[in-house]
Amino acid sequence: MEKIRLGLAQINTTVGDITGNTEKILESLERASKSGVDVLVFPELSITGYPAEDLLFKMHFIEDNINALNEIAKHVPKSMIAVVGFVDLDGDLYNAAAVINDGKVVAKYHKNYLPNYGVFDEMRYFQKGNKSLVVKFDNIRMGITICEDIWYPGGPARDESLYGDAQLIINLSASPYYQNKLVWREKMLSTRANDNLAIVAYVNLVGGQDELVFDGASLVVNENGKILARAKQFEEDLLIVDVEISNVDKARLKDPRRRQDKLLIKKEELETLDIVEIQFTKNMNKPIIESRIEPIFQEVAEVYNALVLSTRDYIKKNGMKKAVIGLSGGIDSSLVACIAVDALGSENVIGVSMPGPFSSEHSKEDAKALAENLGIKFLTIPITNVYNAFIETFKPVFEGLPFDTTEENLQARIRGVILMALSNKFGWIVLTTGNKSESSTGYSTLYGDTAGGYAVIKDVYKVLVYDLSRYVNEKAGKEIIPERVFVKPPSAELRENQTDQDKLPPYEVLDEILKLYVEEDYSLEEIVEMGFDMETVKNVASMVNINEYKRRQTPPGPKITHRAFGKDRRLPITNGYKEWKFLKK
Amino acid sequence: MEKIRLGLAQINTTVGDITGNTEKILESLERASKSGVDVLVFPELSITGYPAEDLLFKMHFIEDNINALNEIAKHVPKSMIAVVGFVDLDGDLYNAAAVINDGKVVAKYHKNYLPNYGVFDEMRYFQKGNKSLVVKFDNIRMGITICEDIWYPGGPARDESLYGDAQLIINLSASPYYQNKLVWREKMLSTRANDNLAIVAYVNLVGGQDELVFDGASLVVNENGKILARAKQFEEDLLIVDVEISNVDKARLKDPRRRQDKLLIKKEELETLDIVEIQFTKNMNKPIIESRIEPIFQEVAEVYNALVLSTRDYIKKNGMKKAVIGLSGGIDSSLVACIAVDALGSENVIGVSMPGPFSSEHSKEDAKALAENLGIKFLTIPITNVYNAFIETFKPVFEGLPFDTTEENLQARIRGVILMALSNKFGWIVLTTGNKSESSTGYSTLYGDTAGGYAVIKDVYKVLVYDLSRYVNEKAGKEIIPERVFVKPPSAELRENQTDQDKLPPYEVLDEILKLYVEEDYSLEEIVEMGFDMETVKNVASMVNINEYKRRQTPPGPKITHRAFGKDRRLPITNGYKEWKFLKK
Repeated sequence: MEKIRLGLAQINTTVGDITGNTEKILESLERASKSGVDVLVFPELSITGYPAEDLLFKMHFIEDNINALNEIAKHVPKSMIAVVGFVDLDGDLYNAAAVINDGKVVAKYHKNYLPNYGVFDEMRYFQKGNKSLVVKFDNIRMGITICEDIWYPGGPARDESLYGDAQLIINLSASPYYQNKLVWREKMLSTRANDNLAIVAYVNLVGGQDELVFDGASLVVNENGKILARAKQFEEDLLIVDVEISNVDKARLKDPRRRQDKLLIKKEELETLDIVEIQFTKNMNKPIIESRIEPIFQEVAEVYNALVLSTRDYIKKNGMKKAVIGLSGGIDSSLVACIAVDALGSENVIGVSMPGPFSSEHSKEDAKALAENLGIKFLTIPITNVYNAFIETFKPVFEGLPFDTTEENLQARIRGVILMALSNKFGWIVLTTGNKSESSTGYSTLYGDTAGGYAVIKDVYKVLVYDLSRYVNEKAGKEIIPERVFVKPPSAELRENQTDQDKLPPYEVLDEILKLYVEEDYSLEEIVEMGFDMETVKNVASMVNINEYKRRQTPPGPKITHRAFGKDRRLPITNGYKEWKFLKK
Repeated sequence: MEKIRLGLAQINTTVGDITGNTEKILESLERASKSGVDVLVFPELSITGYPAEDLLFKMHFIEDNINALNEIAKHVPKSMIAVVGFVDLDGDLYNAAAVINDGKVVAKYHKNYLPNYGVFDEMRYFQKGNKSLVVKFDNIRMGITICEDIWYPGGPARDESLYGDAQLIINLSASPYYQNKLVWREKMLSTRANDNLAIVAYVNLVGGQDELVFDGASLVVNENGKILARAKQFEEDLLIVDVEISNVDKARLKDPRRRQDKLLIKKEELETLDIVEIQFTKNMNKPIIESRIEPIFQEVAEVYNALVLSTRDYIKKNGMKKAVIGLSGGIDSSLVACIAVDALGSENVIGVSMPGPFSSEHSKEDAKALAENLGIKFLTIPITNVYNAFIETFKPVFEGLPFDTTEENLQARIRGVILMALSNKFGWIVLTTGNKSESSTGYSTLYGDTAGGYAVIKDVYKVLVYDLSRYVNEKAGKEIIPERVFVKPPSAELRENQTDQDKLPPYEVLDEILKLYVEEDYSLEEIVEMGFDMETVKNVASMVNINEYKRRQTPPGPKITHRAFGKDRRLPITNGYKEWKFLKK
């Protein structure tokens, strides 16, 4: 029976805050030590936070990170091996893991596979590592990998387990959340564990960082691909689990695949494998700790929690406390207010109703009812006097010209100015309320409803906005968002009898087209072949393209889909590829 | 005497506009054919435009680009070799050059070095090529390289000339402009030519694309590193030059370096060299064409022309015609108006004076005088009534609170709303007037003076703004920007007796600190050691960092420095690396 106790320190780091991250690491070390943890693993780049982006071009930042590592090392006892993500400067720069024992860094691993797609730009900063690493202690062989490494069927995990006979593969990760990723990730980790007949311990970052949110849910899978333990989703956690290494050795006696594959070993492959032995003194003081498999959230609840965590972290990590939201009485701003309350507490959220010349009575009532249901401060600041002053001011220039989108946008911009004035005067951050269906099609007013510090639901399609809002009421067990908000037709209320559907297809149709076009890059021909109306498809594609300039000037907000606007989808503004003009009837 | 006639087709492509780019390529083919050009070379990725960014994830876009290449090939006669940049799909995706003769693509080259730093993200899209290519025709051997390839001392240019004995190296380029780059580039090209004892023909893209501007100035350098010909800077051009290939062979008889280096050839290196022979029928109809070495602009004029071209291209390529600018009577908006007039013509520029409660008489006069000097339409739209209406509206909420930045920002935002209303009503693009000193320090109002479509001088430091403005008057040979604008202290005029220097250090000092901190990533300790005041340095660094969120919401504008904000400098908004707090007294 060769048991070891693993600790997975799922911490919420802040990019750049080396001091704060180091403190968190030291706290975890102390807690884990008390719990008799043998091997304590931290997420990828724990010391610097992830992704540190161009901070990595500052030599003094790199040096501060190495000083922090040396400080952390001093606190690792002889009875523990800690594996900490840091930036290594060793001739070139590497995304690295330090293996620490008895006050010293005893081995270093450099990430082999550098992601440079989607939201990732690691080839901008790092040299690729070209070695794998197995750490031997007692009769255990532990292979080290970092994030992307484990997403490849070959690579270091394979080399370490096959050529280095590692029974345990650890993975330091910073894997940004999007819908349905967790299920896929856990399948993949199970497959890797079983393919390599090794226990896999995957330690994920948790927390929000600008447009990214890391969902945690760190995982330990045994050699059969069975989940042994899972940490909380969207919360810091220290997951402790005892794993039975000897089971791996037993399983390997019976599986033919490793023996066959070992015959294919090439000399060069063996040369890239480092094996480091540690004289490790096991801590015999092991309180009984039951491992746990924390539940994962269901689809809608999962998104909701992602939005809450990213909103909370953006605001707190940027040193703010209170948020202000323009409440229109519509579904989007209602949902954002609920998220803000869950992120910050009702005492830190301010709702503002800004009725204008075309605001309906029910909108004003619904905004007020929502604020009451949430128990938040509620202000009413009418825009009509300012609107009239603008109209008067424009008279000499606009003489004789009809009411058009100018006057519609004007109302939205006055509201933007009011919210920003409240922000300036009281230090509140403005949360914007536009959803992904709107930002895709440019159905918004730049510097109007797009004005603010954080765009909470910018990556949430309208249909999902409704689902999330239903979830809010279900979760509360009562009406938080008034029922009327769900049933009335969505409207910006910027002219008489306006509804969103005057300009947009029904959201059920729009959202499906957007997923195919924006996220999956299908051609318009293909989308039409799937059964969508040609004129609608053309119209949607044209709106998506000509509004790229607006999206460039909107605040950041959390990525929750496979492909969000922002770092994840980098389209030029000046773009002559006008697909919709080529589509034939 | 082995003379061949080269044509360097320095065209202004538009990203995504495959149809338009193809037309430009066909026009150049026809003109070059009439001029007896033997080898006609186009810039990097001419068919798709550069950089096509995530358009490269659309399979139908790739296919359209290959169809365009096949169409272009049909127009290349037997008497000409054309080399065209395109995206090749050959198992994987490559940044490629097609060598075309007699209606057919006879060879393809895949870029070896993919830039993934600064503004470049090529590893996001392309697989790296691993072969070099020499094309043989008559007694000439021509090596092909693409952009980044030639910036390395080794790589394909070396292999082609040393192992493939290429006498002529061509380089298809899309090299974004920044200050002082041209001089460095020409030095580098001369060195490459001489190191390889080969003629180098470098064909650069010209034109603006969002934040990038390509400066053209395509170049032919002989085997001694001497410039034989240069195309115009910042303009489309077809540069034709006859080069004497036999001179290369003669020079090689006398230079020991190649013979020494050839001894080091390894078998693997030879295996990565493709040699393709073309049965080429030279066009004997060769009108006499004198080659030209176009002059390059001096430093300030060069920047000015970069700004004019990028502004013109952004506006025209996005289908707009007229631009509106808020004229404050200060130096920044004055300069932007001059650039706009040079970019679009005075009939397409509208200046708007928006006097407020703190506007001085001289500001209003100077704005008006500038508009008259430029011959542009001039509107006056006072903000005071709207400002008062806002103040009245805020009374219940702001009761008893003092005038602060809220009221300052309010004035700037009212102006932003007015300009955007003019934009909406008349289809004019708003040009913003903030400079790099301001955007670095956040000395601007988000949704106020930052509101607009293109930020013409966002990468121009204030001291250079003055130099450019002087240049405007010198170029005109008369006062365009009134002299008083140069001498009065810069002020936002948002409160009584305000000047920029209330909050900022003198611009001469500020700009130097910013260059060291923003562009060169020096630590604050190092900057202080260079002789700058510690408190000033701390203050500047803190302003740069806490205003990252503002820069993320500002419009695009042309990169003219080594490191611009935007794609070029990717700092997190949520950033706990607060260097200025650690700097000790």
